[in-house]
Amino acid sequence: MDVNIPEVVEEIRTLFERYEQALVDKDVEVLDATFWNSPHTIRYAIHENGYGFQEIHAHRVRRPPGPGIKLAHRRLVITTLGRDFATVNLEFDMRGRTTTGRQSQTWVRFPQTGWKVVSAHVSVTEASPAY
Amino acid sequence: MDVNIPEVVEEIRTLFERYEQALVDKDVEVLDATFWNSPHTIRYAIHENGYGFQEIHAHRVRRPPGPGIKLAHRRLVITTLGRDFATVNLEFDMRGRTTTGRQSQTWVRFPQTGWKVVSAHVSVTEASPAY
Repeated sequence: MDVNIPEVVEEIRTLFERYEQALVDKDVEVLDATFWNSPHTIRYAIHENGYGFQEIHAHRVRRPPGPGIKLAHRRLVITTLGRDFATVNLEFDMRGRTTTGRQSQTWVRFPQTGWKVVSAHVSVTEASPAY
Repeated sequence: MDVNIPEVVEEIRTLFERYEQALVDKDVEVLDATFWNSPHTIRYAIHENGYGFQEIHAHRVRRPPGPGIKLAHRRLVITTLGRDFATVNLEFDMRGRTTTGRQSQTWVRFPQTGWKVVSAHVSVTEASPAY
């Protein structure tokens, strides 16, 4: 399984950047188009858990417009395995907070609809261990 | 791409349960065997971010033994796509806290080594939105 075939990484990078811009713009059409339209899709956000495309869509619509929580991207890692599967992990500085946030996405290329996020998780790093 | 072929789901369920037990037992050998032995592997934990298998391994070793942060599994979703790719998302009650935690894993079946976690993210749900 070939890791990080350059043109596959670039495909994901383009889609990821489009998604990030859509978060800032609150472009629900692009946000929806980025995620797998399926009851199996999951998006854990910072304070809410979306199970299935419809719940995730409702969270998009409810969110107020604005620049969002990301002040700056700190560390972005795109990893592709073969030509149909990828993960994106981003560590970011948070607006108005001293801690960092983390965003993880799992992407699958579907035969009919192309690359989609099937699972996503956004969270705030806690200062202390919880054991 | 077939979603949730029953025997594939059961393969992942067995490996996931083995991993959960290894967390409780602090069985570093099983924890290590669960994750892809690669510099590309990422594990965002509640308070630390592990980039690459070696950092993740160091976090395992450093963690004190004990029952861990999970009081009870609240909602577990295993989703498999085809025969070589899966996600696991778990929402769990936390020991000594009123909020829930979330755990996401991305699994890939490698031709030589079998199923491995290539990306993982564990976090605590925040009470309020951060926009």
